[in-house]
Parts: sequence; structure tokens; C-alpha cells
Amino acid sequence: MTRVALPTAAMRDRLQSWMPRADISVWSAADDALPCPEVDLLVFPYMAPLSLLSRIPAHSVSVIQAQTLGFDGAAEYLASGITFCNAVGVHESSTGELALALILAAQRGIPDAVRDAATGTWAHRRRPGLAGQRVLVIGAGGVGKEVTRRLAPFGAKVIVVARTPRAGVRGLDELPVLLSGADIVVLAVPLTAETHHLADDTFLDRMRDGALLVNISRGAVVDTDALTERVRAGAVRAALDVTDPEPLPAQHPLWSLPGAIITPHLGGDTDAMDGHIDRLIVEQVRRLDEGLPPLHAVIRA
Amino acid sequence: MTRVALPTAAMRDRLQSWMPRADISVWSAADDALPCPEVDLLVFPYMAPLSLLSRIPAHSVSVIQAQTLGFDGAAEYLASGITFCNAVGVHESSTGELALALILAAQRGIPDAVRDAATGTWAHRRRPGLAGQRVLVIGAGGVGKEVTRRLAPFGAKVIVVARTPRAGVRGLDELPVLLSGADIVVLAVPLTAETHHLADDTFLDRMRDGALLVNISRGAVVDTDALTERVRAGAVRAALDVTDPEPLPAQHPLWSLPGAIITPHLGGDTDAMDGHIDRLIVEQVRRLDEGLPPLHAVIRA
Repeated sequence: MTRVALPTAAMRDRLQSWMPRADISVWSAADDALPCPEVDLLVFPYMAPLSLLSRIPAHSVSVIQAQTLGFDGAAEYLASGITFCNAVGVHESSTGELALALILAAQRGIPDAVRDAATGTWAHRRRPGLAGQRVLVIGAGGVGKEVTRRLAPFGAKVIVVARTPRAGVRGLDELPVLLSGADIVVLAVPLTAETHHLADDTFLDRMRDGALLVNISRGAVVDTDALTERVRAGAVRAALDVTDPEPLPAQHPLWSLPGAIITPHLGGDTDAMDGHIDRLIVEQVRRLDEGLPPLHAVIRA
Repeated sequence: MTRVALPTAAMRDRLQSWMPRADISVWSAADDALPCPEVDLLVFPYMAPLSLLSRIPAHSVSVIQAQTLGFDGAAEYLASGITFCNAVGVHESSTGELALALILAAQRGIPDAVRDAATGTWAHRRRPGLAGQRVLVIGAGGVGKEVTRRLAPFGAKVIVVARTPRAGVRGLDELPVLLSGADIVVLAVPLTAETHHLADDTFLDRMRDGALLVNISRGAVVDTDALTERVRAGAVRAALDVTDPEPLPAQHPLWSLPGAIITPHLGGDTDAMDGHIDRLIVEQVRRLDEGLPPLHAVIRA
């Protein structure tokens, strides 16, 4: 009988009829009143800081299933004898959806319309739109693909860039030239040592005047101070679902700049999420039952 | 030599090298200092009230080319001997684009994010998203098709309704049942006697609790008082690019309701518009040169 720890009673209620052979307990790493149970699979709470992984003792849990795709920093907190799996297939589509929401809102003036509503102001003016714009998607993984797929019917000119050039994907070495030709730049890379502050002074200075930077990956892929300075100057517009730090402090100057749209890390969190994460957990339990290795194991501590 | 009157010098500057055989003058119906020139083709100014059509004397102009798709009320002001053409192919794609901008903004909480930015508030909460939602598109003409085409990669369940049922299009007689099963309803019909106040009390009461009504057609397709009442009560959300009246008066209660997004009739007005209208005008001039009837003649007064 596979022992499973789920972080919420709501998740247990959704899942128990789908895992009749599992022994399910409810334990959240965010709850320090109870000790971590010894289980085969532990589902880590959604949006909890990865530092809480340190509450899970070595060898007490065989596999941890995260509910996020990004796992930068997880290795630091993971005790030995534990395999850590990220949530591949759970958030890519809704993050791609949010990228389009941010791009279209910025290109069609939705934030101005919301601000104008406060004073009952009907202020028609031409907007750039998305059709015909040159969009550079940086990252060709799951999220990058979902962004690109949704851009297709809008008549934009889309170029995808990634570390490894291949058919339909240009290499990162071409980034300097491609940046200077893009109206919209979408960051869809994982946060790694290599992508930390990818959008730095040099990157941002290569962007066209008034171009839009969309970040749906992780805040630290952008040098926030460098970006803030350019948004304030009107050189670059920004649409950010992730910031550095996160949450963005109430006093941060980015909040008040009309050229910035900031959403509070909503990327994966839609009504579609429960179905995606549930399917992944059921599949992982089935694999453990059958003695198969778990899917998406990204760290083995 | 075909005589053409264009409403702005900017349009003349864009078009003159494309129409070397045309005799181009600049005259806007909105300018009452000069009389209307006698021409073969007159391009009516964009976003001008159709009542200005009455400044164009009978038989002075052979063909009027409007820059809008909608032409409700034009017949009332049109003098005899004039053919009126609407701007088919000019705005459908950008109006479809705006429909997606409004849907995604509403479903992913962009207006809340913009309002929260004013106080530097990072307020994460789950949003419905678009994936898996049931979307009812009312209208299967040019705009309806552009909306539907852009919805395709988002994984929503889309049903199209129009007057004449056909393959892939349900009939208006099914509207009562379909309305009650939709999470998002998009109005993409022309304003006619038949569609005036289509979204009335009965229609709105059939919508699901919290469903989103998107209007990208004409304001009077919706009974604005009936809608305002339901948005205020939280029964329905609204995303409106068109209102009745237009502009929406500064004191109108819709402006202050968080469940409403109002954009100032931006549907067709993007950077992509000039290319579309220019192509249509050049084609109409070519047809007049060759003695062919103009395209998209919708009224012959």
C-alpha cells in the first residue's frame, strides 16, 4: 500500500476515490504543529517557500512531488535519500495563457482603460496591437511552446530563441541582434545560474524604444533595478507576473509606473490547475505502486 | 481620371504613390469650412458621426467608402445617387484581437492587478482562466470568425451561434439554452433592428452566475441599464469596447463597478489599420477605373 501525504484536505477529498489502494494522510510542510509523516510520496504545498523542504527529514520520504515547474534553490534544502519531482505539465498552458493576457493588455491599453475608469474618462487613442508585431520568445521548453502556440492566430512575427539552436529555434548567440529587432520580448526560461539577470543593462539597452518585456518565468531572470530605470524613462514597457523580490514590496517604484503591468505570480493558478496536478499525482502513485521510477525527477538528494 | 477625396493629408501621403492615375483631394466631412468636392470616391473620416453624411449633397459623389464595418443609421443621412460601402476586411482581425484581450484580462484578473498597483498590493488569488471555459460567440460574420480563430489554441469549449444555423454554427433559436451553459458570451453581431437590445433582461437573466459578457459589436446590442444592474449585483461581469451611449458619460455607474472593463471603442484602431484601409481604397479606385462596381456596397441611396 503506497503511503501518500497531501498538503490539504481539499486535495485529499478530490483524490481519494482515484487512489483506492493508497494510504492518504494530510500534512503540509507549512504546518509546523505536526511532524512530517513517513511516506512514499509527499506532495509539497503550492506557493510555499522551498525553504520549508528542510522540515522533511532525510530518508523519511521517498519522493517529493512539487506543484511548481520552477525549482531553483530546492537542492539547498533537500535532505538526503529524497527524490524531488517538479510539476511538468501542470502550469505550462495557463502560464502561456497569462503571457497572452499580459501581451494583449499592454498592446491594447487595458491598464490605461482601467485607470481611466476611475475618473469616468473615455480616452480613445490608437494602440499598437499584436498583429504584425515582432515577438521574440526566449525559451523553447514547455512554457515557451505554449506561448508560441497561442500567438499563432494573431498574425505576429514570432521568433523563438533557446540555448540549443534547432529547426525553428535560433541560438542564444543571436540574441543581441534579435533583441534589437523585436517589439515584444517574452522570457520563458527556467531560473538557473546561466539565466540569472539574463535581462541586464546590456540586454535592456538592446531592446527597441518602447518595446515590451514580458516576464512569466522567475523574477531574478531580470535585473529589476535596471528594468525599473528604463520603464521610468519610458525606454521599455514591462509586463511582469514574477518579480525580484517576491512579493514586490509595497514601496517599490515599479508599482507606480504606467509602463509596467504587475500581476502577483498568477501564472499557473487558474481553475484548470486542480485537474492537471491531480492527474500527475495519480500517475506518480500508480508508478510507485508498480515499482516504476517517478516522472520528472529533477533532484536526487 | 478617377477623382478621390480622402479625409486626411496623412492618408493622401500614404496613398498617392499607389494611385498614380487618381486625382486626389483632401476633404473631411467633419470640416464644414469647405464644400464637399465632386468626386467618384469619397473616403468618410474614421470615427466621425454618421450624421455628417448629410454634408455630402445628392449626386455629388458616386461612392462613399466608410472606414468602419458597422453602418447602422447611415441610410438615414445618405443623399440620393450615392452608393455607400462599409469597410469589410479592415477591422475584423483587430476587433477579434481585442475580444481576446478583454476575455483574458477579465479571466486572469488584469484590472484587479492594475488597481492593486495603485496601493502597491501583491494580492495573489486563483483566477478562472480561459482553458476549459465554455465560450458562446454570437455572430458568425467576419468578427465572429476572427474571435473564434484566436480562441482555438486556448483550450476553451467554443460554440458559435448565428441567425442561420449551418455546419459548426447553431441557430439563434437555441440561444436560451446555450446562454445558460456559457461561462463567457461574446457579442459579435452587427447592430440591426433585430439585434437592438439583444442582451436584455431575459438574456442576462439566463446567463450563469458570474459569467462574462463581452461586447465588441455596438453598444445598443446591450440594454445598458439592465446590464449595469446585474454587474452591480455581481450576477454578471462585463467587458465592453462599445457602450450606449458612446462615449459613456463620466457619471455613468458602470465606470465604477469592479466587475466591468470598459475600453473606449478601440476595436479596430491599431497600427495594423492603415495597411488594411489603404489596400481597400486602392482596390476600390482600381475597380472604378475599370468600370467595375465597388466592393462591399451596403446602401444605394
